[in-house]
Amino acid sequence: MKGLRWGILLALALPGFVHAEQVAQATSPDGRIVVQLDLNGEGRLAYRVLRDGKPVVADSRLGFIFRNGRQILRGLQLDKQAARSADSTWEQPWGERRYVRDHYNELRASFVEKDHDRRRFDMVFRVFDDGVGFRYDIPAQPKLQEAQIVQELTEFAIARPATAWWIPAFEWNREEYLYQRTPLVEVGVAQTPITLRTDDGVHLSIHEAALVDYAGMNLMRDGRTLRAILTPGSPTPVVRKTPFATPWRTITISDNAGGLVESNLILNLNEPNKLGDVGWFKPAKYVGVWWSLHLDKQTWATGPKHGATTANTRRYIDFAAENGFRGVLVEGWNVGWDGDWFANGWDFDFRKPTPDYDLRGLAAYAKTKGVHLIGHHETGCAVSHYERQMDEAFALFDTLGIDAVKTGYVCDAGQIERQDVVNGPVLREWHEGQWMSNHHLRVVQDAAKHHVAINSHEPIKDTGLRRTYPNWVSREGARGQEFNAWGDPPNSPEHEVTLVYTRMLAGPMDYTPGVVSLTGKNGQEIGSTVARQLGLYIALYSPIQMAADLPEHYAQHADAFQFIKDVAVDWDESRMLAGEVGEYAVIARKQRGADAWFIGAVNDRNPRNVPLALDFLDPGKRYRAEIYRDGEGADWHGDARFRFVRESREVTRGDTLALWLAGGGGAAVRLVPIEG
Amino acid sequence: MKGLRWGILLALALPGFVHAEQVAQATSPDGRIVVQLDLNGEGRLAYRVLRDGKPVVADSRLGFIFRNGRQILRGLQLDKQAARSADSTWEQPWGERRYVRDHYNELRASFVEKDHDRRRFDMVFRVFDDGVGFRYDIPAQPKLQEAQIVQELTEFAIARPATAWWIPAFEWNREEYLYQRTPLVEVGVAQTPITLRTDDGVHLSIHEAALVDYAGMNLMRDGRTLRAILTPGSPTPVVRKTPFATPWRTITISDNAGGLVESNLILNLNEPNKLGDVGWFKPAKYVGVWWSLHLDKQTWATGPKHGATTANTRRYIDFAAENGFRGVLVEGWNVGWDGDWFANGWDFDFRKPTPDYDLRGLAAYAKTKGVHLIGHHETGCAVSHYERQMDEAFALFDTLGIDAVKTGYVCDAGQIERQDVVNGPVLREWHEGQWMSNHHLRVVQDAAKHHVAINSHEPIKDTGLRRTYPNWVSREGARGQEFNAWGDPPNSPEHEVTLVYTRMLAGPMDYTPGVVSLTGKNGQEIGSTVARQLGLYIALYSPIQMAADLPEHYAQHADAFQFIKDVAVDWDESRMLAGEVGEYAVIARKQRGADAWFIGAVNDRNPRNVPLALDFLDPGKRYRAEIYRDGEGADWHGDARFRFVRESREVTRGDTLALWLAGGGGAAVRLVPIEG
Repeated sequence: MKGLRWGILLALALPGFVHAEQVAQATSPDGRIVVQLDLNGEGRLAYRVLRDGKPVVADSRLGFIFRNGRQILRGLQLDKQAARSADSTWEQPWGERRYVRDHYNELRASFVEKDHDRRRFDMVFRVFDDGVGFRYDIPAQPKLQEAQIVQELTEFAIARPATAWWIPAFEWNREEYLYQRTPLVEVGVAQTPITLRTDDGVHLSIHEAALVDYAGMNLMRDGRTLRAILTPGSPTPVVRKTPFATPWRTITISDNAGGLVESNLILNLNEPNKLGDVGWFKPAKYVGVWWSLHLDKQTWATGPKHGATTANTRRYIDFAAENGFRGVLVEGWNVGWDGDWFANGWDFDFRKPTPDYDLRGLAAYAKTKGVHLIGHHETGCAVSHYERQMDEAFALFDTLGIDAVKTGYVCDAGQIERQDVVNGPVLREWHEGQWMSNHHLRVVQDAAKHHVAINSHEPIKDTGLRRTYPNWVSREGARGQEFNAWGDPPNSPEHEVTLVYTRMLAGPMDYTPGVVSLTGKNGQEIGSTVARQLGLYIALYSPIQMAADLPEHYAQHADAFQFIKDVAVDWDESRMLAGEVGEYAVIARKQRGADAWFIGAVNDRNPRNVPLALDFLDPGKRYRAEIYRDGEGADWHGDARFRFVRESREVTRGDTLALWLAGGGGAAVRLVPIEG
Repeated sequence: MKGLRWGILLALALPGFVHAEQVAQATSPDGRIVVQLDLNGEGRLAYRVLRDGKPVVADSRLGFIFRNGRQILRGLQLDKQAARSADSTWEQPWGERRYVRDHYNELRASFVEKDHDRRRFDMVFRVFDDGVGFRYDIPAQPKLQEAQIVQELTEFAIARPATAWWIPAFEWNREEYLYQRTPLVEVGVAQTPITLRTDDGVHLSIHEAALVDYAGMNLMRDGRTLRAILTPGSPTPVVRKTPFATPWRTITISDNAGGLVESNLILNLNEPNKLGDVGWFKPAKYVGVWWSLHLDKQTWATGPKHGATTANTRRYIDFAAENGFRGVLVEGWNVGWDGDWFANGWDFDFRKPTPDYDLRGLAAYAKTKGVHLIGHHETGCAVSHYERQMDEAFALFDTLGIDAVKTGYVCDAGQIERQDVVNGPVLREWHEGQWMSNHHLRVVQDAAKHHVAINSHEPIKDTGLRRTYPNWVSREGARGQEFNAWGDPPNSPEHEVTLVYTRMLAGPMDYTPGVVSLTGKNGQEIGSTVARQLGLYIALYSPIQMAADLPEHYAQHADAFQFIKDVAVDWDESRMLAGEVGEYAVIARKQRGADAWFIGAVNDRNPRNVPLALDFLDPGKRYRAEIYRDGEGADWHGDARFRFVRESREVTRGDTLALWLAGGGGAAVRLVPIEG
């Protein structure tokens, strides 16, 4: 049976039948983007986004399903609305650029239910020239004191057919996938950020900003509509007391692929630095045993092949000192790796080095060389166990001058181990669920107390929280270089090129580039040229970058190694010079506090010529361009991978650099002003 | 960081790299279907299904993610296996056919974890000639006393490209959608049953059987793989104490569309009748105010237009008696409709008639005419409120000879109201969650005690439980005729034709056919011919069928009405004579306990000729074929909808009926043996 009333509700709920009334609107500072809010005859709220008068996002529903209360969906009316504008510029302590302009028009529309419990919530929209962010802001109220959110009914109805670049959600392997490129209508259930290009050339990235005390948002497709589906939790994906606000739902919009990369929308929607002076952290490069572990030449566990021994670590400290790298990372330094750590992270001790690893001695030795050890905390997903030790562990590092730690959460999705009470039941959580969103903030805040920066692996997705907690300097959360050691398949030439326009839109990634030996385990070829490995240092931003290859391999590739020694890791500005999603990317960055520029390029499997106008250089200055490029006949297969040219010439801003990129190739350029 | 071990795990987890070992196999009685179970080097379990040696379902993962324990996924080994065969025939008290053959080979493979907690579970596969059913059977064990299931990792990796007919899951409107026909790779998140036709012509239906004390299974697509996603619940979709078994996951397989319709696989995987003698229920047709409510001529609420008045109901009782209909249904007979019942089902009283409705008097009056009132229980989703009253409500009906009740659960998905303690918190559940799977069984079992049959609307999906609880005689759970009154859009000519091969594979549906006036509210045209409305009585099986139109309309269509009076509702056998998914369907059914046959046909928007060989008729018998068909020029638009011919001729099994079906048309034929 369907009530007559039901008939009315249904009829009004259907597009063809909607008597929608526009109740509010906001426009971007440049006037190109317009957001409109509608209430239909049934009191259902929807938003749409237009650009240059054309819909980019068609009418998309907003609302919630609660477990402990009636859904917020229908019978809504606009109570009041307020508009404001903001235009400020803030400084990043380090980053892709020093100064970030935060310029938007904001609409706050307050809605209340006509009947039932007269519950209220605000929709806050910030409209920037490069996109839109919106969030639900729910005030404290007697009829909604706690929200047990079963589902957030947020939709993104893409107005036109589009191509999508995406990875699946709710799969076993967290975020470590090769990106799929499919028509929008073939997207399954996707993680964010997801990148779209409509058939009329508009580029979109849908993601979220400031994921705090909330479940990560994934996207479930129905037709051309992407609908929010929250990462599971218990009793529901999200439980919050009012007042609270959701993370910002973001739609970055650009005429071209580069515009997505240059956008600061995600950072702008995060809160300012809450940690104060973070000058104790220095963006830097580091070396370590990581690659030899993935080559199976060394092991995390103690024994004949143990990587984290005193002797071996001294060797890396010397290597770092000789070549000007600030950091040395050794994984497997602590107790707990010898058993089946993957099955039982509860054996880890984050305060006890293995007997063959003289932590204090090595820290002191490093200090004499101006080198800093980088700590390592793999939890094996025994997260509560880690939380009980982390404060002591950070304090220990603090005393030893270890000011950065790489954390890890290696286990299948949905298998994070939470134990609220010692010896209590162990509950499983998801890497991107509400509980983990809070765990990661507990880690970075506690680490900050001890002047430790966090580089988290198998993390929750990046939503720009590095602005608020600058010591959350980098993370992994994507298919990294290690897949080139043992992955089946290894990363394709398209992978890193796609990362630039997808995963990297969320924030920095510790991809561990620079494997100039181009060979994985058992001789597996890495689908890259030498020059491409150098280009990655610019293409994939991170304030902490590894020179990942083995010292003996760098000895065999001195030319290429020179760039890795020279390349900066902190920037005054960054510019996308050329590129298309999944095809190629050429990025220029100006070294922070210096006049040098760096250019990095990565390419898919199709060779191409890219003419680069150097008009970003300072007028009147002459520069020495140190060019590291693919040699003639270079290609991502066989010996052709190693065809590599290092050359130098003089250029000015009037010049154009005719760059040739091999299939699976790339390039790196350092531009240094010539004095006098 | 990714452990080396992790690398191994990953490598082994990837198709290209699997060293899989086949550990068990089962074959269908006719040898065409083979199920194989593999364990790969990582101890991951997968099954595959081959037909005639070709894969239909490629390697598909099995397992669980638990909230209160490590996932069951890797490190599995085969402990033991057992095979058995069964071939029996059982009798339906009523149904599409009287005798059902249950013929299969069963494999029970017992798996145990190599390490961790050495947890155990059995996979039980039953392989029939027309498909496969499998379930997880988890024994009681110390390390798994309760399972809080976050996700069931069951996959269906469709081996070839396919066309899919499906409706979305987790949308607001439960099951009431027009079916989408898309390539498999464009399926979003789908409800079951989902129907697939591979590019080499194999027809598949994926569904489940015996959904008891468990969450309904939906399907999330990734590539060509459909992965289980359970309907939400709290703290997880499913919480069960061991021992328990999951519902059967079913894959019906056929060379043609008709094979899906004729399959008994779902019923065969349900338990036998637990209610004993159910002779008190009689399959029957009924009439009532339902259509006038949807036309807005009458109302559920009391007042000048109230439908459920004593006088109006007497008129329907007389109409039923005059025309040989057993049942009269009046909705809106009880207290609670006058307020905003959609918002508050807690006002309903299922024991109190409205003042203008003499329940006892009408029941007595009906009795004198050999007519039975049909009860109506719309809960408005205040399900706990209904459970507290239902026993008294059924008892009341029992005393009045009311032996069938139409129930209803009108609210958005996820908004079922559960209140475990009187005046306690109201929790929201989903229509197809674990809690509702138990609620519906509480209803049918309590109703059975009082000799009441249940016809549930906005129900949980049908998984064949009518075999175990025969008084669960029918349900809705699809986009029904009411959408032709006010739907925007109304049902398309393809809709009912698609239902035959999708929703109807799950079980009977109370579609409420027979609206021969072909006109909805405000004169909205119904996209159907008159003959099609008659064909629906055969095409869409239900043991309780409504003559849905208004008595005055039947008076204007005496010829068509004759068939509605004559058509049977219970069958000795049913045969699919011709059809393709979403295009057309022609079904023949032999009346239970009589020699008459009935043929029903429904067609999409394309006119077509269908030659029907009558070779199913008894040899040596002559039959009078009463043919109700589309007239010349009939079509589903305008006056052409009413072009209708009733004719009669004599036929034998040697004859072929040359049936012409109009666009949006259909046909109905009654074949009565001629005596002597």
